[in-house]
Amino acid sequence: MANVGVIGAGSWGTALAFLLHENGHQVTEWSVFEKDVESLRTGRRLKTLPDLVLPDDMEFTSDLELAMKDKDLLVMAVPSIYVRETAQKMNPFLKEGQLVVNVAKGIEESTLMTLTDILEEELPGADVAVLSGPSHAEEVSRGLPTTCVAGAKTRKTAEKIQNIFMSPVFRVYISPDILGIEIGGALKNVIALAAGIADGLGYGDNTKAALITRGVAEISRLGMAMGGKMETFAGLTGIGDLIVTCASMHSRNRRAGILIGKGYSMKEAMDEVQMVVEGVYSAKAGLALAKKYEVSMPIIEAVNEVLFDGKPAKEAVADLMLRDKTVENSNLPW
Amino acid sequence: MANVGVIGAGSWGTALAFLLHENGHQVTEWSVFEKDVESLRTGRRLKTLPDLVLPDDMEFTSDLELAMKDKDLLVMAVPSIYVRETAQKMNPFLKEGQLVVNVAKGIEESTLMTLTDILEEELPGADVAVLSGPSHAEEVSRGLPTTCVAGAKTRKTAEKIQNIFMSPVFRVYISPDILGIEIGGALKNVIALAAGIADGLGYGDNTKAALITRGVAEISRLGMAMGGKMETFAGLTGIGDLIVTCASMHSRNRRAGILIGKGYSMKEAMDEVQMVVEGVYSAKAGLALAKKYEVSMPIIEAVNEVLFDGKPAKEAVADLMLRDKTVENSNLPW
Repeated sequence: MANVGVIGAGSWGTALAFLLHENGHQVTEWSVFEKDVESLRTGRRLKTLPDLVLPDDMEFTSDLELAMKDKDLLVMAVPSIYVRETAQKMNPFLKEGQLVVNVAKGIEESTLMTLTDILEEELPGADVAVLSGPSHAEEVSRGLPTTCVAGAKTRKTAEKIQNIFMSPVFRVYISPDILGIEIGGALKNVIALAAGIADGLGYGDNTKAALITRGVAEISRLGMAMGGKMETFAGLTGIGDLIVTCASMHSRNRRAGILIGKGYSMKEAMDEVQMVVEGVYSAKAGLALAKKYEVSMPIIEAVNEVLFDGKPAKEAVADLMLRDKTVENSNLPW
Repeated sequence: MANVGVIGAGSWGTALAFLLHENGHQVTEWSVFEKDVESLRTGRRLKTLPDLVLPDDMEFTSDLELAMKDKDLLVMAVPSIYVRETAQKMNPFLKEGQLVVNVAKGIEESTLMTLTDILEEELPGADVAVLSGPSHAEEVSRGLPTTCVAGAKTRKTAEKIQNIFMSPVFRVYISPDILGIEIGGALKNVIALAAGIADGLGYGDNTKAALITRGVAEISRLGMAMGGKMETFAGLTGIGDLIVTCASMHSRNRRAGILIGKGYSMKEAMDEVQMVVEGVYSAKAGLALAKKYEVSMPIIEAVNEVLFDGKPAKEAVADLMLRDKTVENSNLPW
């Protein structure tokens, strides 16, 4: 049995907290909002996971020191934009060598850093790792079979995470490629936006499969230039996570894309979806990374043109279809 | 303008014939069935592509010599099980160096040969190539944006195919990896069966994305052992085609899988779907190839156990989830 602190009490943090509890671990979940802690403690429910009843021996707190003290593992489950400031608050309570597993997805727009990069910077001394994969929180909370990948700096740490999370309904693979895992998770939302736009334009499964596959191809190109591994982008945290995101109406990115495909402006679409659409921010970060690493990313470029330059979506698709004739993969010699 | 013969008048052959006609080529489509030729010639419609009206200057014939004579390119579009016998009939009319592009998908059960292997054997002297990708015939016939890959022995041949097929709604990439393209296309149907089974069991998007991603991982392992390239399995003809197949209710493989997941036997499911379910045959061929090349293919093994050994589908999924803890990709060193 492990002592686990889950930092962040959104859907994903809570679904993982429940999974860890079911695996026999002692779980304490932290939220910055005292009223959310009170509601979880007394009501034992989270609004966004309506079927889930949280067990009585799961603990909730807004005291960060308490959430971190004596914990074998900390799950970092705050939204990506709050990772840095939360890590700064965690810094004084961190034990040397404490394991911190990031489960959020994103890239910091101002620095182009991944979330594990940020954790390394703000929590020197922590053993920073990542857990990612095709995993809707709602399905994990219902015990539907799910797979993820734990990426860590040492095999020993990766196996520790694997042992703690793995269950009959949650299969965990391990990997050394933390960077590849982070890049795939962060940029998938841009491709999900593109897939949604294609849906909104009334295009079919062929178009969507093309966007998903060529989308991963360009994420791979960028990720490999940054030091990630091709195998990762072809795996659960790359294409796998993208498939789940593009298949689901739960995805805000896809829903916003559909509206844009139907002719809404970016602002109108975001007002309608009434939530933060991460892909809009990732689109900018993706384009900046493409420039920095001098990698061709035609789909991410096209999404940027549609979102920020008012280019009609239909025209963007036509341009993508008629780009220069090319090989599928320039690594393969004839 | 090219002279093209399309051998086979099913949905895919006819959709491609129409595309080629729209690209300005002279197209002759062949069927072994005189009554189908007559119906196409006079009615200008195919039952399985109800929205498509075939142009007056598309020619139809049951005369194989006429369909092949003076053709710059032959599209081989008969069902996979008829490829060998059709190629044998074509042999006497083949011109030395004539380009034959296979667009069917499958592996010959008795020999474990790919369809291009069979064409090489039965049509010595032909320049054998392949065109594949995520491409429902019905969507291509409606002009919805679609991407494919042309694989050929020389870049020159691949570019010739690219030039002939490419249009504003049909983007063609080129590749030297004919074998990888063939293996991905042939084995995707087994994974589509597995994805359907998961749907039938009531599992969610997480489970399906896992089956698709890990399914391609095992197809890659096999395909690479046979000489195919990883990049191909991560591309349009690998994961891309699998995504389209698993997303669509058009897929007989997926529909049969759903019934099996609900508790139907394989025979009951095939009776209900009332069509040949290719994945059932590919499952056997996949297993035989896994043994021949000594590659671990747990999903394809599980599908075989469910189809042929009466193993309950739920038990098969549970076994897959609880296999030995492992790395995601054994090529990546720590």
